[in-house]
Amino acid sequence: MKEFFKVTDLDKVLEYASSFPQAGTEKVSLFECIGRVLAVDIYSDADLPGFARSTMDGYAVRASSTFGASEGNPAYVNVKGAIAMGETPSFSIGPGEAAKISTGGMLPDGTDSVAMIEHVGQIDDMTIEVYKSVAPGQHIIHADEDFRKGEKILGSGSKLRAQETGLLAAFGIDSVEVYKKPVVGIISTGDEIIPVSEEPGPGKIRDINTYTLSALVKQNGGDPVVYGIIKDDFQLLLETCTTACKNSNMVIISGGSSVGTRDFTIDVLNSIPDTKVLVHGIPISPGKPTILARSGNMSVWGLPGHVVSAMVVFEVVVKPFIKNVCGLSPETGNIPELSAVLSRNVPSAHGRIDFIRVRLVEKEDTLYAEPVLGKSGLINTMIKADGLIKVDENTEGLDKGGMVSVMPLS
Amino acid sequence: MKEFFKVTDLDKVLEYASSFPQAGTEKVSLFECIGRVLAVDIYSDADLPGFARSTMDGYAVRASSTFGASEGNPAYVNVKGAIAMGETPSFSIGPGEAAKISTGGMLPDGTDSVAMIEHVGQIDDMTIEVYKSVAPGQHIIHADEDFRKGEKILGSGSKLRAQETGLLAAFGIDSVEVYKKPVVGIISTGDEIIPVSEEPGPGKIRDINTYTLSALVKQNGGDPVVYGIIKDDFQLLLETCTTACKNSNMVIISGGSSVGTRDFTIDVLNSIPDTKVLVHGIPISPGKPTILARSGNMSVWGLPGHVVSAMVVFEVVVKPFIKNVCGLSPETGNIPELSAVLSRNVPSAHGRIDFIRVRLVEKEDTLYAEPVLGKSGLINTMIKADGLIKVDENTEGLDKGGMVSVMPLS
Repeated sequence: MKEFFKVTDLDKVLEYASSFPQAGTEKVSLFECIGRVLAVDIYSDADLPGFARSTMDGYAVRASSTFGASEGNPAYVNVKGAIAMGETPSFSIGPGEAAKISTGGMLPDGTDSVAMIEHVGQIDDMTIEVYKSVAPGQHIIHADEDFRKGEKILGSGSKLRAQETGLLAAFGIDSVEVYKKPVVGIISTGDEIIPVSEEPGPGKIRDINTYTLSALVKQNGGDPVVYGIIKDDFQLLLETCTTACKNSNMVIISGGSSVGTRDFTIDVLNSIPDTKVLVHGIPISPGKPTILARSGNMSVWGLPGHVVSAMVVFEVVVKPFIKNVCGLSPETGNIPELSAVLSRNVPSAHGRIDFIRVRLVEKEDTLYAEPVLGKSGLINTMIKADGLIKVDENTEGLDKGGMVSVMPLS
Repeated sequence: MKEFFKVTDLDKVLEYASSFPQAGTEKVSLFECIGRVLAVDIYSDADLPGFARSTMDGYAVRASSTFGASEGNPAYVNVKGAIAMGETPSFSIGPGEAAKISTGGMLPDGTDSVAMIEHVGQIDDMTIEVYKSVAPGQHIIHADEDFRKGEKILGSGSKLRAQETGLLAAFGIDSVEVYKKPVVGIISTGDEIIPVSEEPGPGKIRDINTYTLSALVKQNGGDPVVYGIIKDDFQLLLETCTTACKNSNMVIISGGSSVGTRDFTIDVLNSIPDTKVLVHGIPISPGKPTILARSGNMSVWGLPGHVVSAMVVFEVVVKPFIKNVCGLSPETGNIPELSAVLSRNVPSAHGRIDFIRVRLVEKEDTLYAEPVLGKSGLINTMIKADGLIKVDENTEGLDKGGMVSVMPLS
């Protein structure tokens, strides 16, 4: 029997992720920063909102002027004026007085709350009756209630979502230091692989991995650079790998499905200066023949040639490395997995982790994970799949009806 | 008491979504199509893979040549040659014969299966022994097993993920007809709103909604176009809205927090030719004063000025409309909600749907939804939130410990 290779447990492989540095930082405008990863901590330079604001349309009052008020026994209050939006009130309010105010208006001195317009009746131009007592602080936001001056408002390593861009806007920050998108070189190998534009003769297959891997890199915050299809030739692969290593923050080689090429990739990696193979084989299925090397301070991957295997390895192994190079702190940006009920038994082998493609189906308010049947060489199984479930190495399978965690395939 | 407005139930509002047309279609290259929505059905023009392929490294055989083989009683088979990757085998295989083959190699005529290299011993250059019988079809993919010629491989309205780009590549489709990204005009209103670049005096607040809404539009497949901040002035708002309506596939106006502006927005919409207000008020919290109008064949929104209210309304009301205009079929692109255990009681009022911001926390393998405390005017509550939960109009709240569905805020 042929000796395969000495595998490295998935956990151990993932531990390497944090040993690769980020790709540097750059400043981007607030309109461009959505989805990017903050490279600095950000502190507030002022209180937010900076002044006490009404959160309702109504009348700014001293709460004590309304205590005990009810429909049957309203509080009568003199209207001293109206607050214009965006302006500082020119007058202050005493007991038994009120100022008309809109949502977002600045409270005048002497007031501590707002009586909602729905709880107020107008007697004449100067007088209102309040039907419901208000509590101090009710229907207002204090000057420093959202954020206080000097507070850390966002931390380095956090992903900028819509609300974070809004927060930066609130503090007048119109450009922000983020981690650079890592440049990821993509290389397809194999004598059987032809470009998408060509008509495949017998035995040939069009290049799929360049497209799926580029798309996955983009979706995960990287910037794919395509090096095309390299034939199973040591010298060609060495030259392309060397160039890719010089110009990237990560390199992904896929293919090497032939026995010869698998050795090429290892040999090529060993021939590039300052490069060391760290992992050759991971006990996962699909994806066992995965290679991880360190070249300088970046990671170089050898992924299986089959599209499904390459995609699964990307999802479960490469992704945490890209996240780290993108600067994402380990806690952020992790979509929690979905809980679903397994719709059929899934057999599995001891000693390896199986990743099973599943479709998510909702029936009568219950979410089911239906294993997608079909060989792992078939791309149709990935088209049908909404996610992956993991079957641990210490089990011989999962039972129908049990709860499983589903990693979504976005 | 002031009459507020006649509200429209959320379900009814969402029914309008499908009544607005898509933004047209365009052709994009395969490298640019990730995340876009397919505008045509796609049929295969050939079988995939197009030839019978090995899925393992080993020996292509007639399965019958190995029947009964075991470690103790191996089958002896003559090796007739080796299959080069990407080439048509020049010979055929008969009973008791084999050809060396790599993963992805083309099966020679006369074979129906592959004996894995791990189950084979080499006797000499011409002879192997097979230690395990293989079944017909084992370790191979048939010529039409992935897709058959003439089959519908992708449907109009589906979102192109990594695997769909790979499938298009497999069929040689290097550019594809997708729905155009809808242009969404963004208008911020309010006398209290100042540009991000300015220092806010008392009573003023920087423009947040332009950034959060632009980001949400982008994340959901639209192309935001910013019209800036419009003061509370009928004529100015009318002019800007008219321009935006001419040049967009959807318009979102936020603000109108003052009583005056709320009426402006309605009046402005009623003054634009071929425009009709469909909805003025939805019994949801936050977000009650939401406006929806139809202008020509597009939707125009009046969202609340408070950032949290505007974001929640976007998530629960506007998003389904954007998805429809993007061409997404209603079944696709819906991330299933996450199930979590509610960590505390949530009170709620009868007769309206409450959307509560929650943080997701995993403790001992259980996912908890922790309501984020704080007024809905505070952006910090959205920064802390990972998702929203819905409290129905027919309940007075949710109990601690119950299961809730969480809509993730990406």
